[in-house]
Amino acid sequence: MEMPPVESRSRARSLLMGLQDSICQGLQALDGEGQFQEESWQRPEGGGGRSRVMKEGRVFEQGGVNFSEVEGDQLPPSILNQRPEAKGHPWFAVGTSMVLHPRNPWVPTVHLNYRYFEAGPVWWFGGGADLTPYYPFLADARHFHRTLQGACDSVDPRYYKVFKPWCDEYFYLRHRQETRGVGGIFYDYQDPSGVLYKGAEPEAAAAAAAAASGPIEQDWEQLFSLASACGHAFLPSYVPIVERRHNRAYGEAERQFQLYRRGRYVEFNLVFDRGTIFGLQTNGRTESILMSLPPLVRWEYGYTPAPGSREALLTEVFTRPQNWLEDPALEPLCQPHQAVE
Amino acid sequence: MEMPPVESRSRARSLLMGLQDSICQGLQALDGEGQFQEESWQRPEGGGGRSRVMKEGRVFEQGGVNFSEVEGDQLPPSILNQRPEAKGHPWFAVGTSMVLHPRNPWVPTVHLNYRYFEAGPVWWFGGGADLTPYYPFLADARHFHRTLQGACDSVDPRYYKVFKPWCDEYFYLRHRQETRGVGGIFYDYQDPSGVLYKGAEPEAAAAAAAAASGPIEQDWEQLFSLASACGHAFLPSYVPIVERRHNRAYGEAERQFQLYRRGRYVEFNLVFDRGTIFGLQTNGRTESILMSLPPLVRWEYGYTPAPGSREALLTEVFTRPQNWLEDPALEPLCQPHQAVE
Repeated sequence: MEMPPVESRSRARSLLMGLQDSICQGLQALDGEGQFQEESWQRPEGGGGRSRVMKEGRVFEQGGVNFSEVEGDQLPPSILNQRPEAKGHPWFAVGTSMVLHPRNPWVPTVHLNYRYFEAGPVWWFGGGADLTPYYPFLADARHFHRTLQGACDSVDPRYYKVFKPWCDEYFYLRHRQETRGVGGIFYDYQDPSGVLYKGAEPEAAAAAAAAASGPIEQDWEQLFSLASACGHAFLPSYVPIVERRHNRAYGEAERQFQLYRRGRYVEFNLVFDRGTIFGLQTNGRTESILMSLPPLVRWEYGYTPAPGSREALLTEVFTRPQNWLEDPALEPLCQPHQAVE
Repeated sequence: MEMPPVESRSRARSLLMGLQDSICQGLQALDGEGQFQEESWQRPEGGGGRSRVMKEGRVFEQGGVNFSEVEGDQLPPSILNQRPEAKGHPWFAVGTSMVLHPRNPWVPTVHLNYRYFEAGPVWWFGGGADLTPYYPFLADARHFHRTLQGACDSVDPRYYKVFKPWCDEYFYLRHRQETRGVGGIFYDYQDPSGVLYKGAEPEAAAAAAAAASGPIEQDWEQLFSLASACGHAFLPSYVPIVERRHNRAYGEAERQFQLYRRGRYVEFNLVFDRGTIFGLQTNGRTESILMSLPPLVRWEYGYTPAPGSREALLTEVFTRPQNWLEDPALEPLCQPHQAVE
């Protein structure tokens, strides 16, 4: 495989630490009251990180933005399955990840993660961002997707077509038959082979094939630019949604539905999420890894939303893969439940 | 392998349905207000069950007692690893499982599961019960263990010596370096080979070897009796603890600590629990499987209890493997925090 450039590690580190900085600044300005508290930590086997957590902000009930840089002798089996060439080689990984749990149920939860790996003869980039609303607003889903699409298109117009369905596939709760929310983009194992899609499901594979017949040319610089473009698209993709929703009054019913839906977030992160499993498998810092879990969560046996309600629309439409940008059927479906702003 | 007796399936079914009945009756009498609501369900691939849930009782904030009987063409890989002889054979399983989440933080959460499998040439029994206190009472841990020990001893005095450390090993949160609570007993894959311990960790293996040098003789009838003795020991192991604790007043601090510690329960069940993973892998009924999750849960980044507090004693002593029945060091350690009754 093509070698990464000299300084690849320090450049990836700078990009991702810089991303942590700019996101934290933007979120602190948005919140207006909450402050991120930073803790730096070392990992006994090599590397460390800086965890930043905001608790009990005005907008954010809890938010965490983590940077970490870790090394080891041998990648865990879950990754070696995908990257057999890395077997027997020491590895290096750097990443920034974020999960925000707003207090107001009209404001969606959001997640972002961008990462870079080197292991012996191979290197790759991965990442993405996805939005998890508690209440269904078509405009929010569209804005989020349009912004990420723009970031992808600025590097190559084929990316969004592959990474959007890949996100729907990745953030899928099989036991609930639900996506985690309205998705966004997700990609992994991106390297100069240029085979974009490396997921598991035929549906996204078909989209990948349709979007890029044959491998595309992409080198380290291009994938670095992709991470940068998508990472820096986060604030513009999310801040306007918060500004639109966070002053809207809500009641106990909305709060309870939010706490209930947060249970799905926990289920996804603990049962399926590759980042969480990787962190726990590689003796990561548990508190930083599980910072993604919501501060307060509710489970309720046998709950189903009332037919025709906002909660039903969220469950039946906003947790299914949708073509948010173009499907004309979504508008009439959502129309009765779009809040007047 | 020795064949199971004629009527093995119907006898296991009767035992485990009867256990569900008697436990539900006992718990309803204890609660005094809450009632179990039953839902029967069918599984498309074969089998079904009856789920019983109590919500918002006087003692129990939520409690679930499930009976299920399921069949399939092929066991999932997680079980075939342990039982390669079952490969390619249809399987049958019957089980009763229970998790209780009391409202009062002085009352411990408790879990029980007993199950019986047949698959082609092999059959086996598994099960156990474990106690998860929020506040540390030595008397409760002792009573729970002593009662289960008595049930095991009534069949063979070697069982408790193996199943107690196996429970500590099984209900272990590696990423927290904590047991789920004070444990109890756990066993799996018990069959006429008579090799009691079939877990993964050397510590419990050593205990197993010490307790029973060489395989012990146990046939279907004996293992059926073991499940019956242990299952029917549940009410006497737990009811007196509830009676002792549930009228004790508590404040917001205790409630918050309870909600925080419930997070560990969720982490265990979703990341490690074999029963949960089996259920989700075999297309089980999600609502019944996840009934074990607490009704309200809290996560808090970076929480540590105040030194010398009850909460610290719980964390440092009651989430570590202990010889609850015999270790004389436990009494002085616990003494300052034992409630006056």
